[in-house]
Amino acid sequence: MILSVLDFLHAEHSGIVSRLDTLLRIPSVSPDPQFAPHMQAARAYLRERLRDIGLSNVCELDGGGEPAVFGEWLGAPGKPTIMVYGHYDVQPADPVELWETPAFEPTYKDGRVYARGASDVKGSTVIALEVIAAFLKVHGALPVNVKVFLEGEEETGSPTLPAIIDRYRDRLDVDAVLSADGGRASATVPTINMGARGAGQLEFRVTTAGKDLHSGRYGGCVRNALHEMAVIVASLHRPDGTVAVPGFYADATAPTQRQRDDTAAFPFDPSAFFGDIDAIAHGEPGYTVREQITLRPALDINGMWGGYTGEGGKTIIPNTARAKLTVRTVPGQTSEAVLQAVERHLHTVCREGVQLEILHRFDGAPASTLAPAHPLVRAAEQVLTAEFGKTPLHVRLGASVPITSLFKTRLGVDTLMFGYNLPDEDVHAPNEFFRLTSITQGVRGWAQLLEALGAFPKAAFHPQ
Amino acid sequence: MILSVLDFLHAEHSGIVSRLDTLLRIPSVSPDPQFAPHMQAARAYLRERLRDIGLSNVCELDGGGEPAVFGEWLGAPGKPTIMVYGHYDVQPADPVELWETPAFEPTYKDGRVYARGASDVKGSTVIALEVIAAFLKVHGALPVNVKVFLEGEEETGSPTLPAIIDRYRDRLDVDAVLSADGGRASATVPTINMGARGAGQLEFRVTTAGKDLHSGRYGGCVRNALHEMAVIVASLHRPDGTVAVPGFYADATAPTQRQRDDTAAFPFDPSAFFGDIDAIAHGEPGYTVREQITLRPALDINGMWGGYTGEGGKTIIPNTARAKLTVRTVPGQTSEAVLQAVERHLHTVCREGVQLEILHRFDGAPASTLAPAHPLVRAAEQVLTAEFGKTPLHVRLGASVPITSLFKTRLGVDTLMFGYNLPDEDVHAPNEFFRLTSITQGVRGWAQLLEALGAFPKAAFHPQ
Repeated sequence: MILSVLDFLHAEHSGIVSRLDTLLRIPSVSPDPQFAPHMQAARAYLRERLRDIGLSNVCELDGGGEPAVFGEWLGAPGKPTIMVYGHYDVQPADPVELWETPAFEPTYKDGRVYARGASDVKGSTVIALEVIAAFLKVHGALPVNVKVFLEGEEETGSPTLPAIIDRYRDRLDVDAVLSADGGRASATVPTINMGARGAGQLEFRVTTAGKDLHSGRYGGCVRNALHEMAVIVASLHRPDGTVAVPGFYADATAPTQRQRDDTAAFPFDPSAFFGDIDAIAHGEPGYTVREQITLRPALDINGMWGGYTGEGGKTIIPNTARAKLTVRTVPGQTSEAVLQAVERHLHTVCREGVQLEILHRFDGAPASTLAPAHPLVRAAEQVLTAEFGKTPLHVRLGASVPITSLFKTRLGVDTLMFGYNLPDEDVHAPNEFFRLTSITQGVRGWAQLLEALGAFPKAAFHPQ
Repeated sequence: MILSVLDFLHAEHSGIVSRLDTLLRIPSVSPDPQFAPHMQAARAYLRERLRDIGLSNVCELDGGGEPAVFGEWLGAPGKPTIMVYGHYDVQPADPVELWETPAFEPTYKDGRVYARGASDVKGSTVIALEVIAAFLKVHGALPVNVKVFLEGEEETGSPTLPAIIDRYRDRLDVDAVLSADGGRASATVPTINMGARGAGQLEFRVTTAGKDLHSGRYGGCVRNALHEMAVIVASLHRPDGTVAVPGFYADATAPTQRQRDDTAAFPFDPSAFFGDIDAIAHGEPGYTVREQITLRPALDINGMWGGYTGEGGKTIIPNTARAKLTVRTVPGQTSEAVLQAVERHLHTVCREGVQLEILHRFDGAPASTLAPAHPLVRAAEQVLTAEFGKTPLHVRLGASVPITSLFKTRLGVDTLMFGYNLPDEDVHAPNEFFRLTSITQGVRGWAQLLEALGAFPKAAFHPQ
């Protein structure tokens, strides 16, 4: 059954690229409300595509935010039912002026397609859909039952995904989730994503006066909101790169020996890694770089601003300043507790005469972990060992995939991240790209994985 | 001669307000190049007005930037020649959303006119022009020769004023300067501005990587430009409010006993001063608030920004951040030396792996000082003593008036700041306003001052 599907997918390559191209041209930017009509257009396109593929009950699942697009094929009674997860939303293209080609006009160069969302995660989403299409086209059947679920809020932290899951729980009854999000760690070394860091966000404002003040008239006798913001932000880290917030690391589970071993076994070239981004290594002492970004928590300011930022000068003492931050958490931590520790710290370091307001706090997903004996892991090991001729390493992902823990806590099922994007593809940054070879490899991997999962009994997906 | 002029000005009040209104409606914002056509419109209006008043040789003096508007009346041979200085440019209206009424649609409320530039310094500029107009209308003559010089670059630090002065030196030959800029310290206590702090500006950027990075993929192993900017800005001040830049205070002349006495004699209510701006006192220990803002130097960040500042969140590690700062200097200091000390400090505190670039440095005017025996001071003392029935206090201005030192160094003449704006009028901030009573008082003051100056021989203006 599988060989004819792989042949079909091989022959279909240019058609797959052309359908990815169509999806990339829709600027489905979820964090910016201005793009709402394009979000709608992306959903309309995907509904039609799912129907063309041959899925049933194609519809939008609405939780009060950006709806998810849904479709299913349930023609394999007794076989496990797999949710195929992807997301159709993308990050803003800002800073737009740093893109060498327009973010929403896919450009093909050196075997890559450049566009916002190419790597995160329209490329891998299209791979999953094409494999389902191929099975149905060639055989009129899939090795497992499939429910396709394409989210529209991954880039905003999935605010209404819990509501969608709760509202459509019956329709989302599955044995496991295969996610097109959460990419590969390497193009040459096979790896299995055993989990991801969690995330949480906070936005805050400091205010030092009722209005901006003339720096000549008041300079030297009042606080300046930018000085205060700088003192607060500077207090978040020690010079050695450790997060200085009291209690920040308290609940973080220490890495196991196997985690440290597999992390060490993963080929990693620090000079290429840092050379590529023109930066130097700077992080928590006592951990390797890959441990720092996959097994240890982190805190980063994502935006900070206040005062006059236009052309020329403006001689003011700004009265207010704002900052956005994210925390990345590991197993043992909850972003709720970590953000509470950050909030307490902000209030502690905020000085007399300075008003501190938390404008927005979002307790994102906790970190996720997959059991090594789970059919998702065993099937992936089987496929990747066959494709690469070597046993895959267990790795963890530094970025967060909120859906993994949501599906675990609300649907009781585990998720395997099986995206084909690679770490250097500038996701969330200008000139994001996806490799066309990843499409070739991805459709082979997904086709064999669905086939392998069909060999496991349903019960194996639900260990006690 | 003076009484009929004062009567004329009294009768002309509503006409004066209407002409100020016309000028305020022209958004002559010099720091933002987008407003260049409005700068041109302001000049066209003023040229016509100077001709209407009866001045000769009305023209624009061009130094390669925004030209100054010029006109003269030289019908009093043997009498001193006074340059009447004002500026027609204004600060940007940002943040526009905090204005209660449109910045360039003058609004009249509670005896005030609200508009950008009303206080700084179109109000006082119109006062000076109206007094000249009144003398010429009533008597066909002025008590002194007058050269009107209206600058268009005061709010950008007068970058081409030196070139204008050098190019038109002959036309600008005067005995002293009367400036409409540099306002009153109080509405009830007569004061004479004996000088002003100097100013300098610096804009810099820190860069930590070649591009913005995904905070999941890189969070915990690289520097963040916003953290680095925060550390640098936080290092500029000590917690007690002292500037921490080595050498910052080194050349500052210590306040004299008379300066400290006159500063202490000036009525000052800290609770009203700080209550009005909803801020607390915070400055260099060992000095009173008024000493901090007039007799001591200061350093303020005017703008600081980097990363994502739009709606929602963006999980990036920003690779670059920028800041603008101004220094305020006192006699003994040069902004050049002070800014060099700041630059050295920035480079010293900038950490490994962080690239620091000075994008822009502007060595503005040094602080200025007027001799107590100068005719400008004596004439002002005479006028103010008569108007208020008490001897004026000598005070200094915290804000900078670059022209004062330029006229001193390039034309060899002293400047008296005799503007009628008051410190609480929100200059450089939203909802700037000017009091209509200041027009009434201002035209009386200026008319009598021109009369008093006419009694001094030319030689008295040039002490050895």
